[in-house]
Amino acid sequence: LTSASHSISSFFSADDWEYHQSAERYFRNLINVSESTVYRRILAPCLMITAFSALVAFYNSFALPTLAFALAPHTLLGSALSLLLVFRTNASYGRLVEGRRMWGAVVRNAREWVRLTTVYFPEELQPEALAFIQAFAIVLKGQLRPGRTRSDPKDLTRCRYDVQSKVRKVLGPEAAAYVLRARNGPGVVARALSRNVIKAVQWPAPIPFWVAQRCEDIITELVNAASGADRLFQTPIPVSYTRHTSRSLMLWLLTLPFALWPVMGPSLVPACFFVAYVLIGIDELGVQIEEPSAILPLVPLLNKIRFEIQTAVRERTGSLNYAT
Amino acid sequence: LTSASHSISSFFSADDWEYHQSAERYFRNLINVSESTVYRRILAPCLMITAFSALVAFYNSFALPTLAFALAPHTLLGSALSLLLVFRTNASYGRLVEGRRMWGAVVRNAREWVRLTTVYFPEELQPEALAFIQAFAIVLKGQLRPGRTRSDPKDLTRCRYDVQSKVRKVLGPEAAAYVLRARNGPGVVARALSRNVIKAVQWPAPIPFWVAQRCEDIITELVNAASGADRLFQTPIPVSYTRHTSRSLMLWLLTLPFALWPVMGPSLVPACFFVAYVLIGIDELGVQIEEPSAILPLVPLLNKIRFEIQTAVRERTGSLNYAT
Amino acid sequence: LTSASHSISSFFSADDWEYHQSAERYFRNLINVSESTVYRRILAPCLMITAFSALVAFYNSFALPTLAFALAPHTLLGSALSLLLVFRTNASYGRLVEGRRMWGAVVRNAREWVRLTTVYFPEELQPEALAFIQAFAIVLKGQLRPGRTRSDPKDLTRCRYDVQSKVRKVLGPEAAAYVLRARNGPGVVARALSRNVIKAVQWPAPIPFWVAQRCEDIITELVNAASGADRLFQTPIPVSYTRHTSRSLMLWLLTLPFALWPVMGPSLVPACFFVAYVLIGIDELGVQIEEPSAILPLVPLLNKIRFEIQTAVRERTGSLNYAT
Amino acid sequence: LTSASHSISSFFSADDWEYHQSAERYFRNLINVSESTVYRRILAPCLMITAFSALVAFYNSFALPTLAFALAPHTLLGSALSLLLVFRTNASYGRLVEGRRMWGAVVRNAREWVRLTTVYFPEELQPEALAFIQAFAIVLKGQLRPGRTRSDPKDLTRCRYDVQSKVRKVLGPEAAAYVLRARNGPGVVARALSRNVIKAVQWPAPIPFWVAQRCEDIITELVNAASGADRLFQTPIPVSYTRHTSRSLMLWLLTLPFALWPVMGPSLVPACFFVAYVLIGIDELGVQIEEPSAILPLVPLLNKIRFEIQTAVRERTGSLNYAT
Amino acid sequence: LTSASHSISSFFSADDWEYHQSAERYFRNLINVSESTVYRRILAPCLMITAFSALVAFYNSFALPTLAFALAPHTLLGSALSLLLVFRTNASYGRLVEGRRMWGAVVRNAREWVRLTTVYFPEELQPEALAFIQAFAIVLKGQLRPGRTRSDPKDLTRCRYDVQSKVRKVLGPEAAAYVLRARNGPGVVARALSRNVIKAVQWPAPIPFWVAQRCEDIITELVNAASGADRLFQTPIPVSYTRHTSRSLMLWLLTLPFALWPVMGPSLVPACFFVAYVLIGIDELGVQIEEPSAILPLVPLLNKIRFEIQTAVRERTGSLNYAT
Repeated sequence: LTSASHSISSFFSADDWEYHQSAERYFRNLINVSESTVYRRILAPCLMITAFSALVAFYNSFALPTLAFALAPHTLLGSALSLLLVFRTNASYGRLVEGRRMWGAVVRNAREWVRLTTVYFPEELQPEALAFIQAFAIVLKGQLRPGRTRSDPKDLTRCRYDVQSKVRKVLGPEAAAYVLRARNGPGVVARALSRNVIKAVQWPAPIPFWVAQRCEDIITELVNAASGADRLFQTPIPVSYTRHTSRSLMLWLLTLPFALWPVMGPSLVPACFFVAYVLIGIDELGVQIEEPSAILPLVPLLNKIRFEIQTAVRERTGSLNYAT
Repeated sequence: LTSASHSISSFFSADDWEYHQSAERYFRNLINVSESTVYRRILAPCLMITAFSALVAFYNSFALPTLAFALAPHTLLGSALSLLLVFRTNASYGRLVEGRRMWGAVVRNAREWVRLTTVYFPEELQPEALAFIQAFAIVLKGQLRPGRTRSDPKDLTRCRYDVQSKVRKVLGPEAAAYVLRARNGPGVVARALSRNVIKAVQWPAPIPFWVAQRCEDIITELVNAASGADRLFQTPIPVSYTRHTSRSLMLWLLTLPFALWPVMGPSLVPACFFVAYVLIGIDELGVQIEEPSAILPLVPLLNKIRFEIQTAVRERTGSLNYAT
Repeated sequence: LTSASHSISSFFSADDWEYHQSAERYFRNLINVSESTVYRRILAPCLMITAFSALVAFYNSFALPTLAFALAPHTLLGSALSLLLVFRTNASYGRLVEGRRMWGAVVRNAREWVRLTTVYFPEELQPEALAFIQAFAIVLKGQLRPGRTRSDPKDLTRCRYDVQSKVRKVLGPEAAAYVLRARNGPGVVARALSRNVIKAVQWPAPIPFWVAQRCEDIITELVNAASGADRLFQTPIPVSYTRHTSRSLMLWLLTLPFALWPVMGPSLVPACFFVAYVLIGIDELGVQIEEPSAILPLVPLLNKIRFEIQTAVRERTGSLNYAT
Repeated sequence: LTSASHSISSFFSADDWEYHQSAERYFRNLINVSESTVYRRILAPCLMITAFSALVAFYNSFALPTLAFALAPHTLLGSALSLLLVFRTNASYGRLVEGRRMWGAVVRNAREWVRLTTVYFPEELQPEALAFIQAFAIVLKGQLRPGRTRSDPKDLTRCRYDVQSKVRKVLGPEAAAYVLRARNGPGVVARALSRNVIKAVQWPAPIPFWVAQRCEDIITELVNAASGADRLFQTPIPVSYTRHTSRSLMLWLLTLPFALWPVMGPSLVPACFFVAYVLIGIDELGVQIEEPSAILPLVPLLNKIRFEIQTAVRERTGSLNYAT
Repeated sequence: LTSASHSISSFFSADDWEYHQSAERYFRNLINVSESTVYRRILAPCLMITAFSALVAFYNSFALPTLAFALAPHTLLGSALSLLLVFRTNASYGRLVEGRRMWGAVVRNAREWVRLTTVYFPEELQPEALAFIQAFAIVLKGQLRPGRTRSDPKDLTRCRYDVQSKVRKVLGPEAAAYVLRARNGPGVVARALSRNVIKAVQWPAPIPFWVAQRCEDIITELVNAASGADRLFQTPIPVSYTRHTSRSLMLWLLTLPFALWPVMGPSLVPACFFVAYVLIGIDELGVQIEEPSAILPLVPLLNKIRFEIQTAVRERTGSLNYAT
């Protein structure tokens, strides 16, 4: 799930949309199924179910008292199971959308902070204000997506987001040490942003109070978005929901060969694979997107903040002051 | 539902997510089904339905005028019943998400209060302001999740959240006595927080009015979140909804053996157990998560407030004043 | 629907939740079905459908050209009908949740008004401010749930919420007369609250402007909540939606015996009752909860405001002034 | 759709609710089906489908190579088609709810404007402020529901909302001419309301700035609600969605007689009518409520604003000044 | 998808609604199916599936070991597949609604900016403020819907929204050059709007602070809406969701002929076309509306801003000053 090639982990462009919406997608998707992460991840359980159904088919072909049921219970449960699977996947999708909104709010409010500080703040206070806003996003990412360490240093999935060096680069060693030691990093940075606002208010040429107020609002919204993303990370869809779905699905699939034998005979084996692929795939989809921070394109999102700061700084110091 | 080992009652970490999303979950969940709280709670009704279906099967095997119907009515109702069950469970899930948001808002606004008081308030007023914000969360928890008392002191599920001693520790005996005697504890604490704001406004070196305004907004949001969590606690999904679902489900399950007999014979007994397990499980899930405050990890949530206060206080009094 | 014993018309307590979530509920609910309001209200239509199906069964048993169809059309429509029923019920549930939120907002903002007036307002203005906030809730309830009058004074369902005497008790005869004569009672009270704010602003020791602003915000939110509850009362789910659902359902149920005859014979009679019970029950549920103010526990909600005022007044005048 | 007797075009009262929720509704609705607007509008397509199915039945009864298919494809598509229909209808319902909220917001904010102007504004400025708020609602209605003109003056559905004379009555000829000539009427009136605020701020006894601020907020919310209602009017549910649903439904219904022939014989003709009635009815419902402004009770909504103004004016000028 | 005749790309009028809601739509839509964009786009995959099914039918008619399965697996998956398709389409519809709201917010706030600047700002500052607000919308459109370039200049779908010349016309060459060079165009314009506010605050006759505050709020809302539309553009529904749906659908359709052969014989060929048309059509619908900015009527939306500016400017400079 942390592979760089994961399709959601970069932004879509107009060309991506054209490719995505082209009518050939139906056959293209069918052919490159083996590259699909869903497919690769669910192959194992699907194959085990297929193997089990082959065993059932083999036994029933030769052993005398064939093991077979009527299809009725599977039909009766089919609709409940489908609803459960699809609703769960939709709940996951709702979490993904919410997570995307939270990170969008972090970026948006960070940019708003950049706009207000570079337009209204005294020049001497701007570097600190801009450094801390960058630190906020870095620390938040470090908290929500620390990456994984593997004991084996050759393991390719071994990766870790290096918060420490990035915060140090942005804040300098002293402040960075403090921020990194804190239990609630984003909270510490938020307090530092508040102190920036106080300084700007007490400056000889103070900022208007309503700009200070707006700055405090931005800090509040940043804290809201951070705590929202944190909430999604810390509280999954109730695991009993997830587990009951997965258990019901497996029981349904493992008893399916017995129910299909009377109507299909040995051709139940590919049928079981097909049914398992579709249904386990829906479940897997829902589990994959359940933790938004793990699959959202955080790197390009954070870059947006960096670029905004660079542009705003260049605008202030640059020769071209187009708007006066 | 109050057991400490309940899976939703602690926060998820990155490792939990990896375990949760691993492809082996399908077989793992199947094997440890006996540890599932859902399974243990619905075992009794499922077994009773199975016993009844065994009785039907036994009677039909030997008695002459077999009791059997066509399957058609069960099929016709299947889709309505599934929808009813899954929609009800989804409504419960919506309540859980809302409850989590409410408690998230309590923590977030308490932290915001900590940030504003430690940054803007005169030092003399800070201890009281920090004490009352902690009391707010404690009193709210005491109101929404008082725990249970059993007459038998050896009963292991006997537990009670000890609001009194906690509030006393935080507020001192006098104020605590007052707060604990009140009918609407959070309301009394909210008024106390308001009085803190007034004092800070009338202080010789007063806080700016827009900080006072922001503090009042925080109190309002705390009151909103508290009254939202209270609303979920006091108003369940209409009980007639819950009961009609449960009655329809039981009638459907209890008549199922008669309908399955013509197509399945005695093999209807395990089939009935399986169908009952899946469908009653969905209903049980929905009922379990219907009251969010009962299953959310309130202890770690309240701890977040405590830690924030500790950090903020240490920041103010500590030697390292990194941001100046 | 106005019976005091109606299950949603009082708040849930921790004990209610334990009873509600206990695993025995499945059999308990089955046994006390005759106490269910849904059951009692839909018994008549269910019995008529059952009687009709008995007639069909009787005719088909003896008359020669049996009246019977294939089941196919009923199966084909089954899924659409179920979706229609359950979606409609969910739309009603959405209205109930919204109505509960509106009344929650009325209580919450009334309490906020109490908090702000008792903390910030000059003492002389408090009695009037507290009287009018109580009047607001009473007038709103009188508008949205006037109760029913029956010509027969012995009719037990004869009841009427006595707005007049309650408003008079709270506001005194003169102001009450004015408020009660108005077409839009809550609007008149809102204007009176606004006048309280003006007085407090023009007082010799005026309240800070941002408190006045916050008070105006509270009035606005009260007006919002009142107009939201009014909206739900005045605009039902489109009646053509409700009627098409009910017509389709009845046609489906009345033609069902002809379709079940070939597969079930006379046993279609209990089957028709069962199917009618489940499906009409879903529809009835939705209609019952469609008008939230009629089934929400308004009395305890309004009491919350009264208690808050009593506590706040006692706090101000009492000997124990814990927070100074 | 513009008939005055349309059931959603007036507000519901407590009596309407009692009638609406009475248990007799099932048979009542069945009997008065011929008065249903849905029924009358879909009768034509239903009859054409029935005629076609009669033709098929007639041909198959006498011609030799009977035209008949298996029912399987219809069953397989049944669930997708039902979902598509019901989801589309629900999306329409969502639009109706949103539209009702928008108009509710127009009324609520107009009343808020009346409250603030009559309580805080200098008396000399009140008439103009009250005139323009009324004009806002009239102009908005004129924009969103202009009524229909028919070339035939005797056509009973010929009707047109006469914005011009109403605006003239409220604003006087000069201002009315200007407002009516504008492309974006509500925008012009909003600017006029803003100018009222300025005047009140620059008055010798000016209104407090926070009242002016609140007035500007009200104008913003009016503009929001107006542009929201406009958005619903200008952008339907994607027509390709609507058309694909309608095409799929018609193809499914027109091929149904061939599929029903083997299982039902000539009795397929009433069955086809029944199925068409239910399914086309669902679609028709959705299309009917898709444009909220066309079926909401705009006249009583606008009257609310008028009554509020009358009451507020009488309150200010009247002898009884109850609240002092 | 960029054709000008696309049905959603212009606003609906009252006449469009009447045509849209007329009862003849069922047959009209059926007849003009060949003009449908959905139909034309999915014709290729539908025909390929039909061709494949014809091949299967041909082979099974003559070859001896007929390739045929039971229909059971297709029936069991039917409900899950339908749910997946319809839910995905609904998620897309949700994105469309959100996108429409975002663009509506851009227009609404741009108009609010026009209202505030023309009413409150000093006249000398108005031209610049109005120019930049127009530039904001143009730059945003240029970012979200750049159009497509084809290497072949004769390609009719070759089109490109010419941001450059439009921005230059509105802002003049110098400022335009700066805005167009920026990575985050809307951000740069937002900063320019902020500088307009500062100038108006520091003007000899300054605007009141609460108007400045409101202007800053408008800029914030513009930035919010822009970043929301950007979010929808950059993050599609998880592509694994889309691909799993499309793969499952294709597998289901490609195996359908084998399952239909035993029950239908050669008549499966038109049946397969029909089923494919309905189901692929649902999927195609969802994909078509997934990127809102590509199909919303952006041109008329942007024109609204232009017209508002023209009216407001003419109002200020015109002879008729109706409201004094």
